Amino acid sequence: MEITLKENERIDDLQLKGLKIIQNTEGFCFGMDAVLLANFATVKRGAKVADLGTGTGIIPILISGKSRAEIIYGVEIQEEVYEMACRSVEMNGISDRVKIINADIKNIEDSLGKNSFSVITSNPPYMHADGVKNPDDRKMISRHEVKCNLDDVVRAASLLLQERGKFYMVHRPTRLIDIITAGRKYRMEPKVMRFVHPRYGKAPNMILVEFVKGGKPDLKIMDPLYVYNEDGSYTEEINEIYSNESIER
Amino acid sequence: MEITLKENERIDDLQLKGLKIIQNTEGFCFGMDAVLLANFATVKRGAKVADLGTGTGIIPILISGKSRAEIIYGVEIQEEVYEMACRSVEMNGISDRVKIINADIKNIEDSLGKNSFSVITSNPPYMHADGVKNPDDRKMISRHEVKCNLDDVVRAASLLLQERGKFYMVHRPTRLIDIITAGRKYRMEPKVMRFVHPRYGKAPNMILVEFVKGGKPDLKIMDPLYVYNEDGSYTEEINEIYSNESIER
Repeated sequence: MEITLKENERIDDLQLKGLKIIQNTEGFCFGMDAVLLANFATVKRGAKVADLGTGTGIIPILISGKSRAEIIYGVEIQEEVYEMACRSVEMNGISDRVKIINADIKNIEDSLGKNSFSVITSNPPYMHADGVKNPDDRKMISRHEVKCNLDDVVRAASLLLQERGKFYMVHRPTRLIDIITAGRKYRMEPKVMRFVHPRYGKAPNMILVEFVKGGKPDLKIMDPLYVYNEDGSYTEEINEIYSNESIER
Repeated sequence: MEITLKENERIDDLQLKGLKIIQNTEGFCFGMDAVLLANFATVKRGAKVADLGTGTGIIPILISGKSRAEIIYGVEIQEEVYEMACRSVEMNGISDRVKIINADIKNIEDSLGKNSFSVITSNPPYMHADGVKNPDDRKMISRHEVKCNLDDVVRAASLLLQERGKFYMVHRPTRLIDIITAGRKYRMEPKVMRFVHPRYGKAPNMILVEFVKGGKPDLKIMDPLYVYNEDGSYTEEINEIYSNESIER
């Protein structure tokens, strides 16, 4: 298949069933956060999934390879980025299962309806929008809460999910209070958390959360995930996650 | 000084400036939780401190030895336990700085007034009261939310504290969502958290939280505290905390 690459775009191999992704080297490229989130999410056979703020489409593409989900939507507000994600889906020949849509999650129910999804994922902007200088800059939109904030993301997940549906999010531990407060506000109960630590003895710098819509209060904190060994190499678990083969559910 | 011991009571040495404590071997004895909390709390010279649900009085007694707080109240609802804590204070000759009062934290403002404390501490009952068989049992009252729940404790701390005053609590990570939700409800912003892990690679089983009354949202998660080394011995940090000498602020 012919795929047109634009200026500054390159194709990366995802080391998973031949899947590839187009990224813009001047834009926001996916990080370990997205890979850990795709791994953390439990996606059952036949699941109906949506990824909010999908960017390059990395999470829907990884989930398409790792699960037997029936359909996976990726929602992206930025038209240029949306268009690039569409080309990645096309290039991978997975357009039957992965649909990228150009929409604003603040009125997501207009595009995707209510109470029908089994799984929502999101790797949202981590930082407050205060003091953002270039609110139109694509990287700013990916990193700062310019177009949507944490509250909008949790609200959208709650609207889309069926009762007992699951929402998987990756975020920064500094935002833990906001994450939990937003969860309670929209009947999204955090049920599982996993802290990601750069290494032994260091504070976590990432948090993975599983919310259950209408879930009963009872939090399980998983064993910590360490990224690096003392010698700077990846831990066994990170290597396993990147090898991407352990994830079929 | 003559101190009367009742049935099943014994005196333990706290390894801190000769301080001792009376405990009832049939009742609830203090655990590592209390020691870690007393260590975690920053108590400045001249501070006005109250410990909610003080039990044996362990936390006020440790803080009296570790800090130059002006006055430290211990609040205990159970009359028998209160009376035992009073004898511990008397035995240590610290009655000028440590006052144990027999009161219910649900109307604590009647005894201690409002908005005047700089530091509150609490090692509250960890477990829900659902299904508690013997609600009058002393151990039950210490462990289960029979007489007061998390919401009552955070509310009382908020009432007692001056603006920007600090509240230090130890609890179970399973209650994290309730802790944060109660905090936001009473303008008590969690600013620092420290997870306590039994050992490397294991999920935390204790959490230390510093709330600031009226604080701005911004959470710092500290480096984890590990209790045991791989060989089952205490880690260096735990030994240091138990040696109790590092804490003068």
